[in-house]
Amino acid sequence: MQQLEHIHGGNITLASRKYGLPKEKIIDFSANINPLGPSKKIYDAITSNLDAIVNYPDPDCTELKDTLADYLGIDRDLLLLGNGAAELIYLLVRVMGCKKALIPVPSFCEYGLAVLSQGGEVIEVEMDEEEGFSLPAEKIIKLIPQADMLFICTPNNPTGRLVEKRAIEQILERSAAHGVLVVVDEAFMDFVPQRALYSMMPAVGSSANLAVLYSLTKFFGIPGLRLGSIAAPKDIIKRMDASKDPWNVNILAQAAGLAGLNDLEHMERTNALVNREKSFLFEELQNIPGLCPLQGAANFILLNISESGLKSGELTELLGRRGILVRDCYGFSGLAGRYIRLAVKNRPENEILIAAIKDILGGR
Amino acid sequence: MQQLEHIHGGNITLASRKYGLPKEKIIDFSANINPLGPSKKIYDAITSNLDAIVNYPDPDCTELKDTLADYLGIDRDLLLLGNGAAELIYLLVRVMGCKKALIPVPSFCEYGLAVLSQGGEVIEVEMDEEEGFSLPAEKIIKLIPQADMLFICTPNNPTGRLVEKRAIEQILERSAAHGVLVVVDEAFMDFVPQRALYSMMPAVGSSANLAVLYSLTKFFGIPGLRLGSIAAPKDIIKRMDASKDPWNVNILAQAAGLAGLNDLEHMERTNALVNREKSFLFEELQNIPGLCPLQGAANFILLNISESGLKSGELTELLGRRGILVRDCYGFSGLAGRYIRLAVKNRPENEILIAAIKDILGGR
Repeated sequence: MQQLEHIHGGNITLASRKYGLPKEKIIDFSANINPLGPSKKIYDAITSNLDAIVNYPDPDCTELKDTLADYLGIDRDLLLLGNGAAELIYLLVRVMGCKKALIPVPSFCEYGLAVLSQGGEVIEVEMDEEEGFSLPAEKIIKLIPQADMLFICTPNNPTGRLVEKRAIEQILERSAAHGVLVVVDEAFMDFVPQRALYSMMPAVGSSANLAVLYSLTKFFGIPGLRLGSIAAPKDIIKRMDASKDPWNVNILAQAAGLAGLNDLEHMERTNALVNREKSFLFEELQNIPGLCPLQGAANFILLNISESGLKSGELTELLGRRGILVRDCYGFSGLAGRYIRLAVKNRPENEILIAAIKDILGGR
Repeated sequence: MQQLEHIHGGNITLASRKYGLPKEKIIDFSANINPLGPSKKIYDAITSNLDAIVNYPDPDCTELKDTLADYLGIDRDLLLLGNGAAELIYLLVRVMGCKKALIPVPSFCEYGLAVLSQGGEVIEVEMDEEEGFSLPAEKIIKLIPQADMLFICTPNNPTGRLVEKRAIEQILERSAAHGVLVVVDEAFMDFVPQRALYSMMPAVGSSANLAVLYSLTKFFGIPGLRLGSIAAPKDIIKRMDASKDPWNVNILAQAAGLAGLNDLEHMERTNALVNREKSFLFEELQNIPGLCPLQGAANFILLNISESGLKSGELTELLGRRGILVRDCYGFSGLAGRYIRLAVKNRPENEILIAAIKDILGGR
């Protein structure tokens, strides 16, 4: 049987115990969350909805779904909300009875884990490091007849690479002919300045074999509350809805999501900050001998450290002892030992990170 | 294919739209939640953990699991936390590949729905109204060889009936011989004054075919946050853990559960209130001509209204228009048209309910 591991950033409980530091002393670059944190409107929504925790959540997420459908520009009947996008990945794989999934790697590990967890098989398609980890569309198109499901993450985690719409459309066409469901994960699409050029969301419904995952935890800064969504043809949404427990999205997550989607100003500030700080981090990293950052479209940077003289696990450990969590990419296919992933944060934190890396590498 | 419906109390979103009333004007007797609401410590825990929503939840629920294991008196390795007990019912049924489940009815509908949702079959075993809906242990024991899973809810929803330990032990023994998993749902066990006499929790682990569901939403008053648990043999817990997404329990639910378990005083006040108010409601209802309440061990009362001249749907509708939600039992096997279920609430609310019922029945 194939084996994969659940390895993720953002486990500050574990880090706090491991390094003997209180959680609030830890700066977490290992989880790709909006550096501004949640909008003030989200905190207000939670506080003013506190009394509502004595009620069951609305099973249909009525208000949130209406607002999200507007925001994404699609029919509400094509949407399902989930306890984080992760829940929906597992649910989708199960409901579709996925037996063989094509997964371009390196990418988010939960696609493969969801497939394996219900007895399916994973065919990994390598994205070439020499080609900047771009999607190997031709290779994928050739393999489509062997699979029943295909996952494409764009911008991709952990590389930050966007996939051209044209490439996805070609893949969709070929997949349709073979009854293969194409699942496009747009968890980080809100961070992309020209999202309209890249998002496949508007095509959902008109294509019978396209599903698009969307996350509200990264951009809106609420991974602790869990909130995700999937857009898919109506029959798939219906089957997923019938196969899950009725109250999967908690009441505070619903209130928070609604508030976040209504704060356009916070969304604009987020994008301005992330773009500015991503450039700052990128340039600083590029100027450190032995480091090679990749240009990416999301709110994180994949960093090749193979010329630094340190293994990724060593650098991760040395930063961890200073209370700085980064994501060692050893769990990502093809990146082991040589890459770390860094979330873009605020200037003071980014400066602390850069100083620590310089100190560690310079002191060797 | 067998069909069941998701029908539940507590949908105040729907009720608010249906009756044209603001949510806060609705008194909800349809969901069986602690009438005191959550402990102040729970609200404090949420408020002081608000900043933590920017972090992913601890996938292992470390602190909460330790505290809950202590409270329940079992090994932490036998526990799994979930996004409400409902998530765990679906997960368990799936992981065990349940093909045929025995379900004594009337009972909570999600057992059957979970089984059907993944292609299994349900064998309903009728609990006799004439026998006060007691568990028909002998009938069940005869049917065991036909099933692979059996659900027993104690105290049962919606009847409030407790099951004697001896009966469950006999069923367990017979089930073991046939490789049948017995799932005891103790979602309302915290409301039972002498829970030690009835809870099967201590037997988990020593019996290879016993799983016990436990809910933290009812007694601790946090259905909106979602929090449930299952205790089962280690191999089952491991398989369930591997088959779910990693962050299923949100961070505020973890904090709230921990705070709730640490407020013994609130727990004692809850039991005192529920016992007092259940007696009050029971006597008042008994004195209304045409109504026949059932003695039950949980925080709700099943009410037979068949002699009132109204169908349960009619009474539910008439109360609903007054902003009083009760649970019409039409979705419960054998109760259609003749029963409603009432949660025990505070005195002023209980008085409003009684006055409204008297008014409606008297005015006919």
